[in-house]
Amino acid sequence: MSVVRIAVSGFGAIGLQVAKLLLARQDSLKHRYEKTLLISGVCGSKGGVVEPEGLSLEQLDKKNFVAGLTGMSFIQKVEADILIEAGPSNIQTGQPGFDYGMAALDKNMHLVFASKGALVCHYASLIQTANNNQKQIKLSAATASAMPTIDFVERCLAGATIKKIEAILTGTSNLILTDMLQSGSDYKTALHKAQQLGIADPDPSFDVEGWDTASKLVIMAARLFNTPLDIQLLAKDSLTDINKEQVMGWQQQGLQPRLIASIDFTTPQPSYLVKLKLYDKHDAFYAVNGATKAIWVDTEEMGCFYLTGGTSNPLATAAAVVKDIEQLLMDKLL
Amino acid sequence: MSVVRIAVSGFGAIGLQVAKLLLARQDSLKHRYEKTLLISGVCGSKGGVVEPEGLSLEQLDKKNFVAGLTGMSFIQKVEADILIEAGPSNIQTGQPGFDYGMAALDKNMHLVFASKGALVCHYASLIQTANNNQKQIKLSAATASAMPTIDFVERCLAGATIKKIEAILTGTSNLILTDMLQSGSDYKTALHKAQQLGIADPDPSFDVEGWDTASKLVIMAARLFNTPLDIQLLAKDSLTDINKEQVMGWQQQGLQPRLIASIDFTTPQPSYLVKLKLYDKHDAFYAVNGATKAIWVDTEEMGCFYLTGGTSNPLATAAAVVKDIEQLLMDKLL
Repeated sequence: MSVVRIAVSGFGAIGLQVAKLLLARQDSLKHRYEKTLLISGVCGSKGGVVEPEGLSLEQLDKKNFVAGLTGMSFIQKVEADILIEAGPSNIQTGQPGFDYGMAALDKNMHLVFASKGALVCHYASLIQTANNNQKQIKLSAATASAMPTIDFVERCLAGATIKKIEAILTGTSNLILTDMLQSGSDYKTALHKAQQLGIADPDPSFDVEGWDTASKLVIMAARLFNTPLDIQLLAKDSLTDINKEQVMGWQQQGLQPRLIASIDFTTPQPSYLVKLKLYDKHDAFYAVNGATKAIWVDTEEMGCFYLTGGTSNPLATAAAVVKDIEQLLMDKLL
Repeated sequence: MSVVRIAVSGFGAIGLQVAKLLLARQDSLKHRYEKTLLISGVCGSKGGVVEPEGLSLEQLDKKNFVAGLTGMSFIQKVEADILIEAGPSNIQTGQPGFDYGMAALDKNMHLVFASKGALVCHYASLIQTANNNQKQIKLSAATASAMPTIDFVERCLAGATIKKIEAILTGTSNLILTDMLQSGSDYKTALHKAQQLGIADPDPSFDVEGWDTASKLVIMAARLFNTPLDIQLLAKDSLTDINKEQVMGWQQQGLQPRLIASIDFTTPQPSYLVKLKLYDKHDAFYAVNGATKAIWVDTEEMGCFYLTGGTSNPLATAAAVVKDIEQLLMDKLL
């Protein structure tokens, strides 16, 4: 039986959950795909550990990490068939994920991204190199984690011509918008509440100013429609501009604003926007409350589809990473 | 550039739409997958036409059909890489689709089913033969047509452990149930209305007595969970048993019945049922009105998902068949 070695760069809550899930499923994956999956190395920001014969959960404890075995030196040292990139990433530069990804492709690994930066800034370079090396780039966890977006459109709607996509892709901003309308509070009050619940970050700008949604939109445009977008130039609405009078007006009209990624091919030029859109009670997005995500797709041949759900936590995101690996297995690419 | 030849057995509204879609997309498919797709033969109940170099839309007119070139003699004569089985089928015997499918696998074709019978009765034999011959069996159009079910669970939720699935899979019965509750009418009145609209068949038993939903449930159980079910033995609720007093009671309680396929792995024994289930306004299925289909999936790692949509007409079903072919192309199996 052949062996599949998996390396993980970025060993926070998601990386650890991925390792746990893969180790817990070793037997069932072996049974289904006739492959033995091993974790051959992981690294965090300060150090890492590699073992071509596979690491146990105990060996993945940070006390066993070798200081300095991180970043590019980890990628160079680890032997693997897949690199899972789950570290912090910069959406302005795409680093360090881009360098890790290119180096891993050079070493003949498939890439599974949970981080967004490299995909936002350098998808075209990554996919070209991957194609040249006959390797795959998977990215479920980088788009909307557990909620399927890319694979739903790419795979389940493959026979249809896409006319429009609207998607709620950022749980935090949706939670804040839901609370603003339900409690009639302004942006700052709702943000403060979300921060106290530990849902919004101390610096919420990435989520509430549309950068998170925009990152996912850029990745979807690149992957699904072969369209490179510059995240800096993308029009992005922000929650910070909403005042209390607006909230009261929307309440009176029975409208619920949602921060959406919008892709529209029915306009003279295809449009890609991050925008606040108002929905009334007849729209599916009206009731997508709290940190829930959703996607709505209109097609030429098959009509409209609406998909919602998926938990937002490290386990669910890790399961999205494992999904990408299972897809490689079912497609016999490993 | 290599050629992919496609044969269609059963040339009614769906078969014709498949041919139209494939011919209209020849250039774009050539561009994306570097393959030239040809329709190398089609047959209806009385005759057919074959042409290894590919048939044009004009040549697909029934006036060009050779009498008697149908059934097994068509399968034996046609040269193809894929057989699309879209003819009428019997869910008691699985014929004639089963014989066509086995003969096509013998001739090294992949199978794309739009008909259900062969899959309901003989999935295990078909998939074993297909595996032995390294061929694929695709079946999107046989489960819920445009609405993704199999590929959604198999692909988009691959990383998750399924706990429960509930699905509205039969448009006609859902339309009748919706009307019964909205207009307070009994089963016979609502059925009559649906028949006058041309939505329910003159003999509605296949839809309203749960056989259509059961067929799709049997296919899902076989494909997704490797569980062979006998459709005859499957518990099936029927719309015909609903009386006006029940309808009035449900109206008063704010409940909406739906005829669902139910798969439950949280019970001591996995359960597979076709049942009438009551939903209140907090449930997603409460508002799935008319002939709309929907699927709800609860998972261990990723939480719940709810998907609805997809038009029910020959074009949408044909697009589901084309999706299956595109999946074969994207997986480099052609």
